[in-house]
Amino acid sequence: METIPEIANEFLRNGHDKFLRHLSLDCVIFGFHENELKVLLLKWKEQGPWCLPGGFVGKEESLDDAAIRVLSERTGLKNIFLRQFYTFGNPRREKKKELFRGTAKGGWMMERFISIGFYALVEFSKVSPKADMFSEECRWWDVHSVPKLVYDHNEIFATALSVLRSSLNDHPIGYRLLPEKFTMPELQRLYETILDRKLDRRNFQKRMLGMGILERLKERKTGGAHKAPYLYRFNKQKYEKAVRQGLSNGF
Amino acid sequence: METIPEIANEFLRNGHDKFLRHLSLDCVIFGFHENELKVLLLKWKEQGPWCLPGGFVGKEESLDDAAIRVLSERTGLKNIFLRQFYTFGNPRREKKKELFRGTAKGGWMMERFISIGFYALVEFSKVSPKADMFSEECRWWDVHSVPKLVYDHNEIFATALSVLRSSLNDHPIGYRLLPEKFTMPELQRLYETILDRKLDRRNFQKRMLGMGILERLKERKTGGAHKAPYLYRFNKQKYEKAVRQGLSNGF
Repeated sequence: METIPEIANEFLRNGHDKFLRHLSLDCVIFGFHENELKVLLLKWKEQGPWCLPGGFVGKEESLDDAAIRVLSERTGLKNIFLRQFYTFGNPRREKKKELFRGTAKGGWMMERFISIGFYALVEFSKVSPKADMFSEECRWWDVHSVPKLVYDHNEIFATALSVLRSSLNDHPIGYRLLPEKFTMPELQRLYETILDRKLDRRNFQKRMLGMGILERLKERKTGGAHKAPYLYRFNKQKYEKAVRQGLSNGF
Repeated sequence: METIPEIANEFLRNGHDKFLRHLSLDCVIFGFHENELKVLLLKWKEQGPWCLPGGFVGKEESLDDAAIRVLSERTGLKNIFLRQFYTFGNPRREKKKELFRGTAKGGWMMERFISIGFYALVEFSKVSPKADMFSEECRWWDVHSVPKLVYDHNEIFATALSVLRSSLNDHPIGYRLLPEKFTMPELQRLYETILDRKLDRRNFQKRMLGMGILERLKERKTGGAHKAPYLYRFNKQKYEKAVRQGLSNGF
């Protein structure tokens, strides 16, 4: 069983010199790989609970930069697409301070924290999960079997999953999660995995083509027993425009 | 020209005894009335700039309760539907501290603030706008002619308007904004006003009826020159379920 190192104790005592008080962030890092959806969790040292990877905001740091720092420290990835989705500020969200139990009373860690939630979706085979100084393990969990997490982290996770699912209605997804060239059934399985339900093949194809972000290639997928399906790729310019501006499939 | 009262100076000196440091909230209060969309703005005293109504979070207060407090103080309304939409944390967002200029150096007001954005949509004829202790005027502005606001408040306003418009795709709107009984053209004009563009009459009707939140009444609207249109009302139970869970018009 690992213990918390001296550098961490220094952080617990004087972290407020570098970081904003009572403000944290929690990252819900979803991983997709071969029709599975996972979430990255940390196990606290000294028989502590499981929790979401999180961090604090430097006194001169933007919220996005702080989240990018946490994500890249835990995953080893750069250029992750991440999105701020909600700020959690119930005054009772961490009433029982389960973490940092050894900390001196009156320290900045014992204050109430408001936490800004971010989520990201990455290809999990590309990630090297890495624990932080307070945790002894960092690994993927299937989204269906997430354990009891510390504080309101189960609620933060559930909110992120709900926002991710809704986001499929107005933003494209798939870049960096699928191979460069993919078939319509592969794209459909990505959506089905995130939504956790089957979709109608014809409606799905119609809707995806209607987004105007796909290019059908001349070559077809080979090797299958059935008629070879068409290969597609994202038109990167149109895809990125849709990420920024949203898909206009609504009113 | 009004000056800032002593109670406000006390707040500037010692407000951090009651409120969380470097955390504020800004409210974008949209008002709808007879096919106009407005936003409620405050004019700072002593020739200060226009800004969004805002406030601070009490040390034991939830974010929602803080926002409800600010909204009801500025509008006189209770039971407002409001939604947290984004947290603004650029470290340069209020680099030039234009407000609270008379405050002592080193005071809590001179720190960097991270601001949590909320929006609400109300029937503006029911509102009694009321300035706060730092402002001399509180009034509605047409959303097309919002002046230059302090700090990043124009960005906060624009983000709220964009989120409000997107929300029409997955959440119903209209309760408390329309009379209890209304016609389909009246409902359509509400949507057109928020979206700031014309909608196709047939598609709109089909989509609204498809939401399953409307009840068509036996009586028709009387008094017009044309054939009397049907009257509708919201099925409150189904409406509220759709507010909570979202409309399933997506994947």
